[in-house]
Amino acid sequence: MRSSEFFQNFNVVTILLTGGQFVNLMLKRYYLFMTHNSERIADLLVHLARRSVQSSASELTSAQWAALRFFAHANRFSRQPSVFASYHGTTRGTASQTVKTLVNMGYLERSRGLSDGRSAVFDVTQSGMKALDSDPLRSLVQTLDQLSQDKREALCDVLLTINKQSEESEMGLEDTHFGTCSNCKHFRQSGPNSGYCSQSSTALDIFETDKLCCRFSSV
Amino acid sequence: MRSSEFFQNFNVVTILLTGGQFVNLMLKRYYLFMTHNSERIADLLVHLARRSVQSSASELTSAQWAALRFFAHANRFSRQPSVFASYHGTTRGTASQTVKTLVNMGYLERSRGLSDGRSAVFDVTQSGMKALDSDPLRSLVQTLDQLSQDKREALCDVLLTINKQSEESEMGLEDTHFGTCSNCKHFRQSGPNSGYCSQSSTALDIFETDKLCCRFSSV
Repeated sequence: MRSSEFFQNFNVVTILLTGGQFVNLMLKRYYLFMTHNSERIADLLVHLARRSVQSSASELTSAQWAALRFFAHANRFSRQPSVFASYHGTTRGTASQTVKTLVNMGYLERSRGLSDGRSAVFDVTQSGMKALDSDPLRSLVQTLDQLSQDKREALCDVLLTINKQSEESEMGLEDTHFGTCSNCKHFRQSGPNSGYCSQSSTALDIFETDKLCCRFSSV
Repeated sequence: MRSSEFFQNFNVVTILLTGGQFVNLMLKRYYLFMTHNSERIADLLVHLARRSVQSSASELTSAQWAALRFFAHANRFSRQPSVFASYHGTTRGTASQTVKTLVNMGYLERSRGLSDGRSAVFDVTQSGMKALDSDPLRSLVQTLDQLSQDKREALCDVLLTINKQSEESEMGLEDTHFGTCSNCKHFRQSGPNSGYCSQSSTALDIFETDKLCCRFSSV
C-alpha cells in the first residue's frame, strides 16, 4: 500500500467513525439555524410586543396607552395629534379622537408653552404621568431592567439598526422618521448643558435631547 | 511649598483644565443612558413590531395574518383555535371566528391527520402558504436577513431571555408557554433524524422540532 492510499483509506475510516458526531454537528447547526432564522425572530418580536401592551384589567385601551406614552416621550415639535397619527400608523381622525378622550380624562392638556398659531401641542398632565405608572408596558420595562447593561445596549443597538433599515426601505413612502438627538444629524452640542438643532434653528436644553422627535434624521 | 501641597494644587489645576472633558464625558454617559434605558427600548420594540404588522393594502386583517402565521409555525399539538387564542391573547370566541374566516377563504382546513376526538386541529392549505408570501411581516424578515449572523443570534437570544423572564413573572397567571424543541426540557434527541417528546410521549421527526409548541417548558 502506498502512503497516499493509506491516507485515503484512513480518511474513509475516520469519516465512518466520526459519522455520528458529524450528524450531531449538522443537527446542532440545523437547530441553531432554525432558532436564529429571521422568520422566527420576527415572530418572537411581534409576539413579545403584543403580550407586553396587553392588559385585561386596564383603565385605558391599548391605543390610549400608546398615545399617552407617545406624548410623554415626544419633544415640543412632536406632541401633536397628527404626529402621533404618523407614529402610530393610524388616521388623523382616529388620533384626534384618542387625544380628545385623554384630554377629557384629564391626562393630556393643550400646551400653553409653545404656540406658533398653526397647530395644537399637547402636554401630559400630572395625573397623566401618575397614570403611566400602571402602563401595561411597565412589566416589559422591568424585565429589560433585569438584563445586563451589555445585553441591553446590544438589544437597543440592533433595534435601532432594524428601525433605520426599515425606514430606509420605506423611503419615499413615509416622510416622517422618529428618533432622538443623540444620533440625529441636525444636532450639535453647543455647551455643557445645551445643544442646538439646525433643522428647527432652536437651542435645546440637555433634558430635551432624549425626547422623541419627528424631525429626526439619522447620522 | 511642600511636595504634598504641590500635588494637591496640581490636582486642582488638572481638574480645572480637564473640566470641559469631564463634562463632555458625563454628557456622553447621559446620552448613552437615555438611549439605552429600558423605557426607550420597550417603546422601540413595541413601535417596531406595530409598524411591521401594519399594511394599508392587505387582503387580511392583522388578526387574520397573526392566525395564519401561527398555524403555519405551530406543531400538531398546537394548531387549535383555543391555543391560538392563548398565544394571541384573545378570547376563544374571537379566535374561532378568525379561524372560521380563514377556512372560508381557503387558507386553513380541518386536519385529516391527527384526530384524538377531542378538539379540531387545522392545517394551512397550499393557497394559505402562498398568501403568506404577502404577509406584511415579510418586510421585517427581510430586514433581519440583512443583519450579520452574530447580530441576529444576539437579538434572538436576548428576545428569548426576555420572553422567558416575562413568562416567569407571570407564572401562575398563565399556564401556556410557547417555544420550540431546541430549548425545551421535554425534548430528547433519539436518532440522527428524530427526537422524542417526553411530555406527549411522541416520536418527532426532525422537521417537526422547529415548530412552535404549546406544551413547551424551558430548559
